[in-house]
Amino acid sequence: MKKGHRSGCPINLGLELFGDRWTLLILRDMMFAEKRHFREFLSSAEGIASNILADRLAMLVDAGILTRHDDPGHKLKAVYALTDKGIDLLPVISEISIFSRKYLPVDPALLGNGVAHGSDKVSAMEAKMEQLRRDHLGTLSRSAPDAERAAGSSQ
Amino acid sequence: MKKGHRSGCPINLGLELFGDRWTLLILRDMMFAEKRHFREFLSSAEGIASNILADRLAMLVDAGILTRHDDPGHKLKAVYALTDKGIDLLPVISEISIFSRKYLPVDPALLGNGVAHGSDKVSAMEAKMEQLRRDHLGTLSRSAPDAERAAGSSQ
Repeated sequence: MKKGHRSGCPINLGLELFGDRWTLLILRDMMFAEKRHFREFLSSAEGIASNILADRLAMLVDAGILTRHDDPGHKLKAVYALTDKGIDLLPVISEISIFSRKYLPVDPALLGNGVAHGSDKVSAMEAKMEQLRRDHLGTLSRSAPDAERAAGSSQ
Repeated sequence: MKKGHRSGCPINLGLELFGDRWTLLILRDMMFAEKRHFREFLSSAEGIASNILADRLAMLVDAGILTRHDDPGHKLKAVYALTDKGIDLLPVISEISIFSRKYLPVDPALLGNGVAHGSDKVSAMEAKMEQLRRDHLGTLSRSAPDAERAAGSSQ
């Protein structure tokens, strides 16, 4: 953690860490689109520049939000995974999504993604976090996440 | 809402609207420090520049997140209030706070602020949103919010 924070307010410290227009999109890609590799993040619809992506990935690893390992299936590639700390950002991302679905011109084709809201929000969030823990913690491969995901997530 | 979004993803649209390092701090000041005037926001610890503050306030009014009215007590001053849409950003801000309290070097003097987390998070959030509705919707003055706030918020 760098010194020189603007204040010790929790909102400010959070925004200093991930309060830009790109960082949470990378985490979104990991949480909801199962992306793990640099080129996968680079291909997202928003068109992040490769130097910004490299900077944000390095920052997220440095902050303990992601881990970076050699991909056992591709010797020249790195594979990124969420840590517990990274998974704990799911509620922030989910609340942004809930707000946007209510007020902003969300693409109807994307409305089915994400964590459920309404009365079952808390249990759906916990199920999604559990799925992310299974997929990201302690394993570097994508071993059979699809079946688990279908069983564990609520839409 | 401007055209030309990077994508129709709800996370992206939310970040296009408030995903910078300043906008949510202004809303934090309204929600947790009862700030309503330009100079009050300007005096916050993070040191926002007056031109950035003016830009963000105008954007927030334009987006329907804040209202701006002449202050009945100060003819030359404007007073800002949250709309229902603005109050619906409380869960985003609260989840940032919960994450930061767990992982970031939050000033201990500020730990008592904010919405409760843990098992009573949902009810505490609803109580805080109800308090904000009482304070911000339909009234422009700060009519006796302090007693209501003490009764309505959970720490």
